[in-house]
This record gives sequence, C-alpha cells and structure tokens, in this order.
Amino acid sequence: MTIDPASGDAGPTAVGPVEGGGRAPRGRRRQRAEGPSGPAQPPWRLLQRRMEPVRAVSEDQLESIVQAAKRVLLETGIDFLHPKARELWAAAGADLDGNRVRLPAELVDELVEHAPSEFTLHARNPAHDVHIGGDSVVFCGVGSAPYVSDLSGGRREGNRADFENLLRLSQALNAVHLQGGYPVEPTDVHASVRHLHATHSLLTLTDKVVHAYSLGAQRNIDCLEMVRIARQVDDATLDQEPSIFTVINASSPLRYDDPMLEGILQYSPRNQVVVITPFTLAGAMAPVTVAGALVQQHAEALAGIAFTQLVHPGAPVVYGGFTSNVDMKSGSPAFGTPEYMKAALVGGQLARRCGVPYRSSNVCAANAVDAQAGYESVFSLWGAIMGGANLVMHGAGWMEGGLRASYEKMVIDADLLQMVATFLDPIIVDDASLAVETIAEVGPGGHYFGTQHTQDRFRDAFFAPMVSDWRNFESWEEAGSPSADSHASRLARELLDGYQQPAMAPDAAAELEEFVARRVAEGGVKTDF
Amino acid sequence: MTIDPASGDAGPTAVGPVEGGGRAPRGRRRQRAEGPSGPAQPPWRLLQRRMEPVRAVSEDQLESIVQAAKRVLLETGIDFLHPKARELWAAAGADLDGNRVRLPAELVDELVEHAPSEFTLHARNPAHDVHIGGDSVVFCGVGSAPYVSDLSGGRREGNRADFENLLRLSQALNAVHLQGGYPVEPTDVHASVRHLHATHSLLTLTDKVVHAYSLGAQRNIDCLEMVRIARQVDDATLDQEPSIFTVINASSPLRYDDPMLEGILQYSPRNQVVVITPFTLAGAMAPVTVAGALVQQHAEALAGIAFTQLVHPGAPVVYGGFTSNVDMKSGSPAFGTPEYMKAALVGGQLARRCGVPYRSSNVCAANAVDAQAGYESVFSLWGAIMGGANLVMHGAGWMEGGLRASYEKMVIDADLLQMVATFLDPIIVDDASLAVETIAEVGPGGHYFGTQHTQDRFRDAFFAPMVSDWRNFESWEEAGSPSADSHASRLARELLDGYQQPAMAPDAAAELEEFVARRVAEGGVKTDF
Repeated sequence: MTIDPASGDAGPTAVGPVEGGGRAPRGRRRQRAEGPSGPAQPPWRLLQRRMEPVRAVSEDQLESIVQAAKRVLLETGIDFLHPKARELWAAAGADLDGNRVRLPAELVDELVEHAPSEFTLHARNPAHDVHIGGDSVVFCGVGSAPYVSDLSGGRREGNRADFENLLRLSQALNAVHLQGGYPVEPTDVHASVRHLHATHSLLTLTDKVVHAYSLGAQRNIDCLEMVRIARQVDDATLDQEPSIFTVINASSPLRYDDPMLEGILQYSPRNQVVVITPFTLAGAMAPVTVAGALVQQHAEALAGIAFTQLVHPGAPVVYGGFTSNVDMKSGSPAFGTPEYMKAALVGGQLARRCGVPYRSSNVCAANAVDAQAGYESVFSLWGAIMGGANLVMHGAGWMEGGLRASYEKMVIDADLLQMVATFLDPIIVDDASLAVETIAEVGPGGHYFGTQHTQDRFRDAFFAPMVSDWRNFESWEEAGSPSADSHASRLARELLDGYQQPAMAPDAAAELEEFVARRVAEGGVKTDF
Repeated sequence: MTIDPASGDAGPTAVGPVEGGGRAPRGRRRQRAEGPSGPAQPPWRLLQRRMEPVRAVSEDQLESIVQAAKRVLLETGIDFLHPKARELWAAAGADLDGNRVRLPAELVDELVEHAPSEFTLHARNPAHDVHIGGDSVVFCGVGSAPYVSDLSGGRREGNRADFENLLRLSQALNAVHLQGGYPVEPTDVHASVRHLHATHSLLTLTDKVVHAYSLGAQRNIDCLEMVRIARQVDDATLDQEPSIFTVINASSPLRYDDPMLEGILQYSPRNQVVVITPFTLAGAMAPVTVAGALVQQHAEALAGIAFTQLVHPGAPVVYGGFTSNVDMKSGSPAFGTPEYMKAALVGGQLARRCGVPYRSSNVCAANAVDAQAGYESVFSLWGAIMGGANLVMHGAGWMEGGLRASYEKMVIDADLLQMVATFLDPIIVDDASLAVETIAEVGPGGHYFGTQHTQDRFRDAFFAPMVSDWRNFESWEEAGSPSADSHASRLARELLDGYQQPAMAPDAAAELEEFVARRVAEGGVKTDF
C-alpha cells in the first residue's frame, strides 16, 4: 500500500477558506473567504459559555451520587486489565485481587486533585488551537462510525474516499473546532497501517487538532510522532504542549481494557489529553435508573481520571459523560432522550466536582436525516450546553447511535453548532443596543427597517443559517419543496467544491510522508486479523 | 347556517381516553386506555419545573432593559386606540395626547404590583384544570393558523373539517394541556358566527381549557357565556374562577388596538385570563438589536399588564414573550433562532421581575416536517423551558411561522412535549435508585438486563416516544425507510380513530346548543365583510 497522491499530502496550496485567530471581531461575523469557497458561514472562532450551567440534582443529591460511586470503588472495585496499571495501583496502596482494584476514596480524591482544570490543545495550525475547560466550549466532528451515507449514494461501509471527503467537509465547516477521530472508519485500509494513512490524511487534509485511537502502544506512539512532525516541534515542546487527544472508554461495567490503559500509559506521561468516557447505557451496561447509571459513570470516571494522575500527576484529562438509556423494546441504544439530557446535566455537575473539563456529545438514534435527527440532536445539545460541556464530541455528522456518519447531517449539525455559538454570544446591553432613541424615532405604528439604527446593523444582526429554508411557502414550493436534507446535500457538495487544502510547510509535508512510508514499509503494527 | 350535527354536539358518550387528575402516580406513567384508543402515550398530567431558570443577562443588564422600557413609556408613550382605555388612563393620572398615553414608572409599577403571581384556569372537565405560574409548566395546542396540511392531502385553507379534526387530535394527545385558540381558522364558517360554532366545537370535542379571540366585545361575551354553560356554573362562580383566556397582542410598535383593549375591558373585570403578548420582531416591528427588541417588548408588556390592573386590580394576567427576528434577506419572520432563544430567556427574567406568569411558544419557520422543523422547535422549547415559561403556546402543530397547522407536526410536537415533561421530572436519588448493591451484584464485565433491579423497573424506566424510530437500520429499511413525518401521519390517523368525544352532561349540551342556535339565528356579530 502506498500513499495515494490524491489524498492530500501535496505541498502548500493557497491558504484555505478557514479564518483562524481566536474570537471574531464583533460586528463582522459573516464573510466569504477570498477565492473559490463554499457557502457563506461564520468564521472559526472559540466560544465561551457565560450562562451558569443548569443543575438537575441538588448539592445533597450530588453528594449522594459521589458517595455511592466511592462505595462502588472501595467495595466492588474495578478491573484494570493491564498488568502495569495494577502494579502502579498496588504501589499507590490500592487493594488488589486478580484484575480487581479496590480504591479508597482518599486515594482517589488525592489523585484527582492533581488534574488541571483547563489547558490548551495545540493544532498544527496555531490559529486552530483550542482551549479545553473553564467556560470554553469546543465542538468536534463525528468520530468512529463504521458506515457512511449521503443522500444520493445511500449507506455504505466506511472507506477511505468517504473518510477523506468527510475530513475535507469538517475542515471546511468553521463550526467544527477539532477532529473527533475518524469521521468514518476507512475499512478498506488494512488495520496494520490504517492509523498511519488515516492520521496522515487528518494532518494534511485538515489543520485542526486531531484525535488518536488507543489501540495499542505502537499506534499511540506513531500518531504522536506524526503530530510532532506536522507541528515541527521537538519532543520537549510536545511534552509541554498537549497536541493530540484520545478517548479512553471504560468497558462498562467497571472495567478498563488493555489498549485503553495503554493509551493512558503512553499519553499521560507526555501530557497529551485523555478523555475518560464510561459507556454507561442504563438498562444494559449500567443500572436502569438514571441515578444508578450516574453512580457507575462516576465510579468509572473517577478511577480513570485518578489513574491518569497516578501515571503522571498534572496530566490533562477530561471527564466524559455518555450515559444514555437503551430502548427497552429492542435493546438498541437511544440518544437525545430525556434521560440522556438529565444525565448530561448531572455529568457536568460531577465533572465540576472533580475540577476537570467536561465532555458531552451531539448524538441521535435516527436512521434518516429527518425531524427525529433534528430534535434528538438539539435535545443532546441542550443537555451538553446547559450542562456546561467544554468539549462536545460527535458535534457534526452522527447518525444511528454512532453507526453512521452522514454528509447531510454533518452540514445540518454544523448549522446547529453555529446557532449554539450565537446563542452563547452575550447579549449586548448598552445605550446603542437598548435603542431608546430609535424606538422614539419610529414611534407607535412605525416600522424599523428604514431607520439608521437598523441599516447600520442588519447585515450582521442575526445568525444566518446555511440550511434553514425561510422562504414563504409559495416560493419554497416553486423551488421543488426542498427539505432540510436536500439543502444539506447541495451544501455538502458546495463545501467540498470550495474546499482548499490547508497549507503545510514543504519540510513538514516531506518528513511526514517519509515517516508514513517508512512505517508502512515496516508493516505498521501487528494485528490479530 | 346551522349547527352541523357531525360537528360533535351529541349527548355524552363513553368517557374518553384521557386520564385526568393532576400528577401521575409514580412508576405507572404509561398506559393504554380502556376501549378503542390510539397509540400508547403517557397520561395527561401537570408539570413542575424544579430547575432554576437560566439567566441570559446579568441583574444589572436586566435593570438597564427595565429602565429603558420605562423611559419609552414615559417619553415616547404608547397608543391606546380605545377611548375607554384612554379615559381610564387619564383618570389614573397618565399624560394623554391624542391616542398617545405617557406613563410614569411609579404608576406602572404600582399597577403591576396588583397582578397575581399564579392562578388556576378552570376547564369544563375539572381533571383538566391547569395551574398557571410558579413552577408550573403547561402546553397549548397550536392556534390561529390560516392554513392546514397533512402528508397525504397537502396544504389547504383552514376549514371546519380540519379545525374539528385537529381539535380531536389535540384532545387525544395527552401532552396538550389546553387549547390555544383555533388550531386552524375555520374560514368556511362565516365570520359573523364563526366564534359561536368554533367555540361550540372547542367545548364539545375537547374538555380542556379554551381560548377566545378578542375580536370585539360581543364575541368575548358570547364565548365567556358558552364557557359558563359548559361548566354549568353561575356568573358569580365564573367571576371567581378564571375559565377562559385570551391573547392580547400589542400592535407593535407601541400600540394597543381597539378589539384587543376591548378584550381586556370584557375579561379582566370578570377575572378571566389575559395573556399580554407584544409582537416584537426585531428588525421589523422592533429594533434590530435583541436588547432593543426586549426594551420594546417590555414597554408594551408593562403597559398592557398595567392596563389589566387598572381595569380590575388582581385580574389574572400573563407576560407573553414573542420576540424573534426577521430573516433580513426575505423579511420573513424566523423562529427557533439563537436570537429567539436569548429573547425567550430574558423574557422569563423580565416576567419574573413583574411577578406574573410567563408565556413562551414552540415555534418554527419550516415549510416541511423535516429536520428544520425538528431543530427549530426544540431550540424554541429550550428557550421556553430554560427561560422558565409557565405557559407554552403553539406547543403542538405549528409550522411556517404560524401560517400553517400540521397534523404530523402536532403528533411530533406532542412527543417533544412529553420528552420535555420527562426531562422536567426530578431524578430520583435514593438507595434503591443509586443501586450500589446492584452494581456490586453485576460486577465488572456483567450485564444489567437480567437483574431484579432492572426487571422491576424496565417497563417504565424510560420515556417511550410514539414517533422516534429506534430500530436498527436493517429493520428500518425493510419497513420501507419511514421518516418521522410518515410515522406521525400514521399516528395521527390512529389517534383520530381512537378519539372518543369527552362526555358532557345532557343539560349542559342542550343549553349550549340552544345558545348557539339562538345567537346564530340573531346573526352572530356584525362584520365589515
């Protein structure tokens, strides 16, 4: 297998359509980039949540959940399948019994205390660095779907061409702050070298922060080295600057598997970001009650976060909440449900109790990009945003409970994320915006459009969505009665047509290509299949 | 014109499928009614919001908005087109100049102080009484759409058959607490007698609280008398028990029209409920800034609320927030936008400042029951619920910025409202729900489905939607790839098939029919057209 020259490792091209550089200047939020590009959209910018997070349980109830989680860790304990992990726990004074580790609350608390409350995650393009924690909110593209679909081509297995196109799309979408893994699994690339080719695509087709899958030490090491090359920094700098992140899922209930722990063992010592995420589906891998599922989520999260700090005190770590419920009729996972929303709110309360950033998601269980996809996603975002999430994974493109990435859903979600971004912008309250003089000028029965106050502001006054169709019925019908998914399909094409590959210095590009070629020639990593 | 015998004024039938009687018993939330009925849904029940409302502006900023609104009322003033209204204002010491009334802040504050913070609104079926204010949340069906659609029949002008079918549907949907006006305008009933026929349908096809349109004194009087007959109470009781509500829109900017003021003059003295709702579309009838539009909303709301208290101190009144923005490209109103959400949050802050219940809405601008309809509606609900709305109007069925009622959207929205209801249910945190013993019993690597803890709870553990399709892709595809709107279409038919007319005592039914027949024979009310 060779690197496909079409996959985007060419030298620098014109600077892409993505504006970088932190918060947007006020009053100039919407602009078309120079040169060929897709539809108009607000620029890439970092977001702050100024509203207080919503609490779904009282402080007393929260304390009950925390104490119950600590009882679970002490009395039942949790399996750590990696021998090195157990050694470390034993040395720290935990009680070991086979794979089982029982953790006293004091030990957990003391370790969790070391975790930083916020940090910066560096992209190869410094304009796309993101801040994680505090009142920051950042959005990832969808990750890890085995299937992919678009409106015209239908549903198909994940493959490299779609993988790369979805990377281009998420690079072009300014709402996507960082890549949340492979948007779809490129299953036509052999597993032994997939991480090399895929990470090469991630680092060349996009210039946003990337994610690595923890599937064994060598893969973690390879991906981190590729990020180092793409950033053109030395190891010492990399160790100071978190530049890649990995999601570590607990194998709920109460187990951390070998490759997941290997991810922590590789990345935490090097100050790379670990997102601990228990996969606690109430009624299946967790108790059927929301409170019980949260107890288990918190026990698993505490154990995982504590372990990162045992490996390397001060290592950046995120508390991931992913508790949802199963459909008790079919056993399928459900998302964007009322139970999901409540768990997302309490997840934020629990993460803040730990003093670490909070991760949530934009998820749905819909099979079609229809009303269900729309309402389940916004319910998820409601839980995430009001819950105080700092990192919203699967922000754009997720369908079918994560089994499928969709081009159309990615575009629609990007619009939803931009709406959330605008919602998070503070309301400006000053003399000019209060507009008492303008109200006097217009007076009873008048109209505002002609006023100078309106003329000065109307172009940028309101969020202008890409997808939403606000024409009157007659014009809409005349245009063929397009639904949101067909608008999104057209927009996806326009965005891909307007996509420009982000520049990379020739040295970096060459070094990266060389590294991949060498590691591919070496056979990548051993696989069992 | 005679009363159509098919329109539902027959004698009592079997008791309908709607369970009444306040909050549902815990753990038995989902049940099928006896006899023929539609799809399973949670029972009718009242809701409480225990979460703190979200504040989108600081207390200082809120004060700036309030002070600016008071400056508008004092300096610019507001037009009251009804001579009686101006007389009352003059007598209260306001400054008059033609139609213009200028209001000192002290006068406004003193009047608003008399408005009650909460009250009960009585239905003809006492099991469907609703509480308005405090931490209560109630949902109305859609009101006032000129057009109607369903998936098979397309879009058509409002007519009596659809009007009555939508009443049946909203009666059958337990998520709908009360009727929010005519779901669609029955334009084939002459305007002179429309209120008589339509209110007769409202009172016989449904047994939930009804709304009257303020379109002149006689209509208000007729509707109130019909409600009195349906409830079979005397005038003195009616005057003690709010039993009908009317929405009073300001003709923004800064004007209250004659029929609207007549509504207050008729209903406030009789302690019927007035929902003051400025129609402040930023960029058209209000300043282009969110803060400015809120200043105008608050000025108009204060003037309207104060007027109800001038007419009758202590009269029940609601603060309606309806601020949204227009699409600056087309001039069309947009709904469910980020600006709408922010305005909905601040609207709640302003209403609480007045000490009166808060009204918001579930609105969208979509032309199709597609992803846009889903996401705009949930964004609206996000603003309403997190803003602390007590009364959510247009809760089920609204499309196209209010121009159209949709059967499918009504069913989908009912599901959204039930999801919100479940979201509002407190998380139970006690030993049984924390499930520490069950977590110990299952242990690492186990599964929860077989446990007694799950078996005891799984049937009612999670909200089970009517519409959402959670099957795996293969089963879904095999079933013909139905989208949410086609599910809703089927469900609407099932709900209508299962509809049972709520019982009415024969005396009441006869008296009501007699009243309508007499008033119709008298020619109803004079119209200009």
